[in-house]
Amino acid sequence: MKHSKIPVARSIVALCVAKNINHVVISPGSRNAPLTIGFTHHPEINAYSIVDERCAAFYALGMAQQLQKPVALVCTSGSALLNYYPAIAEAFYSDIPLVVISADRPIERIDIGDGQTIRQKNVFENHILYSANLYSEIVLESEATDKKLQQKQFESQKHNEREINLALNKAIEGAGPVHINVPFYEPLYDLVENVEVNPLQILPEIKERTYTENQLEAYAQLWSKAKRKMIIVGVAQPNAVEQQFLEQLAKDPSVIVFTETTSNLNHPEFFTRIDTIIGPLEKDDNREELFKMLQPDILLTFGGMIVSKKIKAFLRNHNPKQHWHVDPKKAYNTFFCLNKHFEVSVNSFFAHFLPLTQKIESDYAEYWKNTKKKRQVRHEKYMDEIPYSDLKAMQFIVPAVPENYILHLGNSSTIRYAQLFKWKESLKIFCNRGTSGIDGSISTAVGAASVNKEPTLMISGDLSFFYDSNALWNNYIPSNFRIIVLNNSGGGIFRILPGNKNTENFDTFFETTHNLKAKSLCEMYSFEYEAASSSEEIEKTMQHFFEASEQPKLLEIFTPRKINDEVLLEYFGFMRSEK
Amino acid sequence: MKHSKIPVARSIVALCVAKNINHVVISPGSRNAPLTIGFTHHPEINAYSIVDERCAAFYALGMAQQLQKPVALVCTSGSALLNYYPAIAEAFYSDIPLVVISADRPIERIDIGDGQTIRQKNVFENHILYSANLYSEIVLESEATDKKLQQKQFESQKHNEREINLALNKAIEGAGPVHINVPFYEPLYDLVENVEVNPLQILPEIKERTYTENQLEAYAQLWSKAKRKMIIVGVAQPNAVEQQFLEQLAKDPSVIVFTETTSNLNHPEFFTRIDTIIGPLEKDDNREELFKMLQPDILLTFGGMIVSKKIKAFLRNHNPKQHWHVDPKKAYNTFFCLNKHFEVSVNSFFAHFLPLTQKIESDYAEYWKNTKKKRQVRHEKYMDEIPYSDLKAMQFIVPAVPENYILHLGNSSTIRYAQLFKWKESLKIFCNRGTSGIDGSISTAVGAASVNKEPTLMISGDLSFFYDSNALWNNYIPSNFRIIVLNNSGGGIFRILPGNKNTENFDTFFETTHNLKAKSLCEMYSFEYEAASSSEEIEKTMQHFFEASEQPKLLEIFTPRKINDEVLLEYFGFMRSEK
Repeated sequence: MKHSKIPVARSIVALCVAKNINHVVISPGSRNAPLTIGFTHHPEINAYSIVDERCAAFYALGMAQQLQKPVALVCTSGSALLNYYPAIAEAFYSDIPLVVISADRPIERIDIGDGQTIRQKNVFENHILYSANLYSEIVLESEATDKKLQQKQFESQKHNEREINLALNKAIEGAGPVHINVPFYEPLYDLVENVEVNPLQILPEIKERTYTENQLEAYAQLWSKAKRKMIIVGVAQPNAVEQQFLEQLAKDPSVIVFTETTSNLNHPEFFTRIDTIIGPLEKDDNREELFKMLQPDILLTFGGMIVSKKIKAFLRNHNPKQHWHVDPKKAYNTFFCLNKHFEVSVNSFFAHFLPLTQKIESDYAEYWKNTKKKRQVRHEKYMDEIPYSDLKAMQFIVPAVPENYILHLGNSSTIRYAQLFKWKESLKIFCNRGTSGIDGSISTAVGAASVNKEPTLMISGDLSFFYDSNALWNNYIPSNFRIIVLNNSGGGIFRILPGNKNTENFDTFFETTHNLKAKSLCEMYSFEYEAASSSEEIEKTMQHFFEASEQPKLLEIFTPRKINDEVLLEYFGFMRSEK
Repeated sequence: MKHSKIPVARSIVALCVAKNINHVVISPGSRNAPLTIGFTHHPEINAYSIVDERCAAFYALGMAQQLQKPVALVCTSGSALLNYYPAIAEAFYSDIPLVVISADRPIERIDIGDGQTIRQKNVFENHILYSANLYSEIVLESEATDKKLQQKQFESQKHNEREINLALNKAIEGAGPVHINVPFYEPLYDLVENVEVNPLQILPEIKERTYTENQLEAYAQLWSKAKRKMIIVGVAQPNAVEQQFLEQLAKDPSVIVFTETTSNLNHPEFFTRIDTIIGPLEKDDNREELFKMLQPDILLTFGGMIVSKKIKAFLRNHNPKQHWHVDPKKAYNTFFCLNKHFEVSVNSFFAHFLPLTQKIESDYAEYWKNTKKKRQVRHEKYMDEIPYSDLKAMQFIVPAVPENYILHLGNSSTIRYAQLFKWKESLKIFCNRGTSGIDGSISTAVGAASVNKEPTLMISGDLSFFYDSNALWNNYIPSNFRIIVLNNSGGGIFRILPGNKNTENFDTFFETTHNLKAKSLCEMYSFEYEAASSSEEIEKTMQHFFEASEQPKLLEIFTPRKINDEVLLEYFGFMRSEK
């Protein structure tokens, strides 16, 4: 097997492989040649080449999200690295492991006027779990004739190996982004064969804590006494919670479970469409009374970010007495009343906690489950009545998505529309909610698609799609990948936000209207293209859109620009009425 | 006139206008609404709307480069801001003033799970001249009923005004990027009319130092005695140096002046094509002798980055006894032998320094001017002999560019090819050499074009062009804007770099070959499109390409992928021969 002649490059490759990091996304460059050579020659590495580093990083993020293990990124020195930053921030807040490996110039070449040279050391400090700053090797240890230099090189190498271990371990243990910065001296392209690579190995620590009965008892007592308990589940991987616990919670008359679309958690008794419950309450004349009825004594949350602004606003204004969050890594004080962070996995928590609790009589769940049923009837009725619009388009898309698809949703309007619908339970649903940016949704979906046998569908608004159009500049898109673009000629979400629509310059500076169409991009990047501009056309297209094809496919749905805000805003008023 | 109801937003707008910052590039968002409202309602502000923040920042950079004053950028909270980073680093190293204004969530909303919320404070720390972190106003001072709160709000406001002044002044004084982070409470969209806006004003400091005769005397003596003086001029604005000084230097037999293509400095006696002098020396059997003849006693440099790797390598290996750099702001130790930084403008330096110097007999300039003449003959001969290739294409492009054009060059191969040619002296030539990235060249050129009456031509390689294709998603591109894309189906530069070509996986991971064509993008973004695939077709197209048109135009020149490296590498060997 061929290796780079530069030992630190060999150590990085070997330690990635040793830690089961075998997907590497490489962007072209010269300074990173030792890494590129090392990774692409290793039989256990799957290497991907992506030119635009912004897309490369989101692509890696999409892969890591699906594989649930770190994916590595390799780029050259200079501003290339900075293009990773949007995806690094997303990974940081979404708890997705990414290993950023940047080639650098030797330290004495920084800030002296050399090309592609910036201050890479600790450059992601605000949003990174670990920054390993490695040493460069001026003369290879094997070639050093001087004893002192040999010793220095040996010590540098050992330092480097330790730092690489610590960085990779942190990505694994902490499920987030880490940065390894590696300065390289020239020559960069030299190879060696049949060399033994045995870097220092430090195993990642498995930090599993458990709570004793003693520690849980006080909480179990509170739980057993509380007549109104609300569980909210944010972003979570499919099958994150064992079915037995779900069943137990579903049967409890004092518990209601709100699951976000991105929670990938389903049960017929759960409330999968949070906004359809809360939204109409806001419009109700008796809202304060109703909110008081919904206000829980105990709020238990797990999973990542919560999309629903409505439930956040409700709980911030109607604090539960107790808010507990269950997560091995972190707990956000989302509602300004966090009492307890249980630092364990949800399954571990329920396994130890639920047996300590007792049932209590309550009509809490019953009342809201009735409300939910009425809302579902109203939702269907509203959907049948509304004119052609984004929301109407969703009515045809939702039931058409085949079983077992990986579904990626764009920010910000798409995910909000999606939260109003009941999706097939076999779908696995994702959205970049760490930073909720529009900057890399398509690339993330492409990354997810490229490591999954199940087909992936991306649903996106037009701004998210065109923003990240370089996502399609990618040789690894499987033919079963599908994109639906809801093109309403601008950032329709701005029409929906309060207060905005009637300011001057709205079209240009808020909605940012445009006449772009995705067709040309499809030609350029070899996607099959279809368009639809009416309910009938969508329905018709949906009949064949998911069939096997030679190329990946994109459906562009054109909707009228100015109607969507009214259709959505009236939805919640309509839902309130029970007739 | 309408203003935002939020005082800090009003102060920012008023202080920008007061400091003559009246170009503002806004990306859509809700949190930044108070700024968007403020800027777009102000009659003295030219506001531009760009969706992709990476492009927006480079677009602003291109404008600031041309206007030679700060341009402001406004974006919403979250990862939007991070997309500015590549352009911020470019501005930092290219000394271009940019004012980044980011809306933020109030501090208590950070890291609690809200959308579009990251750690924005000091996020560009490695590459920024100043970071102003402003306070939020919970209740507007005018609405505060509590005396203590009124006082607190008043003090916050005064703190904010001071910080805004300091940041804007730093951008002006230091000619670089600054960051103003502004948290906003809701409501964000409220307007007020007829309100007086009189924020604290702190004027920028004009730091002009001059050197006395006393301080310069020792250097003048060294200069007067030195028989070999070399001047190298890096990136500079057109007309940066007064003609009288140029004439004086041109006549001095002991002085040779190397001017980079991006120096915008022309004189018939100067050496405008550095690599055509140094490159052939590297190939010469007597290279050590020739390098010794060229090695200066004194090296005087001014301007920004130096593109030519060849002259850097030469001078690092053949240090002058003295290296002086003239620049009011900074001096890089590019050749590892910097003795003196004259912290003044070049004109001020020459005005005070040259009168103190005396002429000395020398054959230094004469010898190298003869070499230059011979090289020019060889260059013409080589150009006529070579097959169709990137270099051949340049032969037809260079003379065809009309007088007075603004010419933007892409990294990395385009600028290197461009350095081999003599361009019309009336051209103004630019290239993003601060970080030498390929990430925003097109956007920068579009920015330059949109504030110039003279037409702008961008010449780019294919990777740079496709990387930054969102640059064309811009409503402000004038119809006289022109792009020429040299499409050799990949990163041809990697074929030219030493040692690389014969490694495995070269095509995929270094050259990153592709079959993309710019035609679809032109259709999408309403550019007129032309293509050429031979010398004849280029020649023919050049006859009309620069004529007035309704739309901006793009010419895509297809060249063979595998021949360019040989054509370029053989160039320097051919140039060495004097026959």
